[in-house]
Amino acid sequence: MSLPASFVSYQSSIGTALDALVPADTPAPRPVVDAMRYTLLAPSKRVRAVLAMLAAELYGGSALAVPAACAVECVHAASLMLDDLPSMDNAVLRRGRPAAHVVYGEAITVLAAFGLLNLAYGHVAGTYPPDLAARISARLAGAVGLDGLVAGQAEDVLATDQSISFESLERIHRRKTGVLFEAAATSGALTAGAASADLAALSAYAKNLGLAFQIVDDLLDVTGTPEQTGKAIQHDARKTTFVSFSGVDGARALAGELCETAIAALSAFGGRASRLIDLARFVAARTS
Amino acid sequence: MSLPASFVSYQSSIGTALDALVPADTPAPRPVVDAMRYTLLAPSKRVRAVLAMLAAELYGGSALAVPAACAVECVHAASLMLDDLPSMDNAVLRRGRPAAHVVYGEAITVLAAFGLLNLAYGHVAGTYPPDLAARISARLAGAVGLDGLVAGQAEDVLATDQSISFESLERIHRRKTGVLFEAAATSGALTAGAASADLAALSAYAKNLGLAFQIVDDLLDVTGTPEQTGKAIQHDARKTTFVSFSGVDGARALAGELCETAIAALSAFGGRASRLIDLARFVAARTS
Repeated sequence: MSLPASFVSYQSSIGTALDALVPADTPAPRPVVDAMRYTLLAPSKRVRAVLAMLAAELYGGSALAVPAACAVECVHAASLMLDDLPSMDNAVLRRGRPAAHVVYGEAITVLAAFGLLNLAYGHVAGTYPPDLAARISARLAGAVGLDGLVAGQAEDVLATDQSISFESLERIHRRKTGVLFEAAATSGALTAGAASADLAALSAYAKNLGLAFQIVDDLLDVTGTPEQTGKAIQHDARKTTFVSFSGVDGARALAGELCETAIAALSAFGGRASRLIDLARFVAARTS
Repeated sequence: MSLPASFVSYQSSIGTALDALVPADTPAPRPVVDAMRYTLLAPSKRVRAVLAMLAAELYGGSALAVPAACAVECVHAASLMLDDLPSMDNAVLRRGRPAAHVVYGEAITVLAAFGLLNLAYGHVAGTYPPDLAARISARLAGAVGLDGLVAGQAEDVLATDQSISFESLERIHRRKTGVLFEAAATSGALTAGAASADLAALSAYAKNLGLAFQIVDDLLDVTGTPEQTGKAIQHDARKTTFVSFSGVDGARALAGELCETAIAALSAFGGRASRLIDLARFVAARTS
């Protein structure tokens, strides 16, 4: 199942915007520019960016959400580059291609990831009116920091070859995936004028959606082919996953439940949320 | 020569603020919190933070400059952690102690550096009024990105064991040191209400000061003791430095000239700039 056809135009416009964000002819050392573009522009579902755009649609339009969506994709790409490093997951395949560190080496990959995180903030500060920029930056900072990606990835690294509890597993993936989904949804909504009071429902939706997305990732690691996932199969064998905890059927059921919980969080939006509901159904059923 | 006594209170207040910025009991995996604190709170001249405070003094007071100064120190600490990695300079000693990667391993060190860069932006967005936050963020982003630290460090890594031109050497160190000095000075000044039109002179001062600071670093690498520098001696033997280009006397003369150029850039401020002048004289003469 691919992303609903109506979302493909968002994927395309985000891809174009990301391409312009790190021009190939930037006057900086070529390898670091190439490494940033390599991961940022690799074929991707762009699910976080699409989520930002759909959240903005709730409030009348997605046009202003593009820079926020790009910032989230920069953060995500940076986190993938770090995850794959030899000192972390030591993964050699990502999005169907050699991982960045395989192509560009560790030093340039770390610097490129650093550059992408920095670019996310620079783009937000340089694009939006100050009040909006500060609010989006604060949400990104929360998603990356010590209750977000950095903490989640650290706990994940420390848990390799260890037995961990379901609560730990859930916390790792809330921080590694859920919080950036939340930042995407709320930032997108803010660009279209959402009131702060409205954001709790969107956060609840996005948090559950992100966790479901991760569980399906774990399922695909076991049941998918490299062609479907773009990653080596059962690469995660040294880690506790939702599948190793609950089995294939249990994990699939859990992902479905989380998507229903996500959808239920949207009830106050009524029919306006139909495309966010479509996204949740896609996440639960995706095979790549 | 130590930092002028009148600056010591700034070093102390910045140290206290940094300590509070990453509390030891942050509910995140202990190693990553410890690694952030290890580098951020290591004994340091805090020259970039002092620069931010002194630039704010020009406009009436430094009280509001503390968060900006802390953000710059976070960025600087992050860059040191990356510089020392095995894949980059492979340095084992920093600020007189084992480098972070020696103590915490590569994975946690990279994540901690990422966390510190992120914290710089989060702290600015969470502390200042939006208009000021956006302006400071934009300056930080410029200092870190593809005409700043990321580019400078990438070119530096790629130049290891290579012969490079004086222009390349100067560009590397402008990006690795000069631009963050500029961001420190201009951000500090902005917190005290400096008009944008005033910032060019401060930028010129800071850029030259930063380059002088780096040249003195190169000198100390050759002439200093490990007790003075906190680093292994002649660690930079595989790299072209200002000393390998110009010799000890030539490099010392160049640092002196750059400090005079820096001081000359302050002429429009008259007697108000006396403490920035003191800082420049300290940088030219420092022995540790």
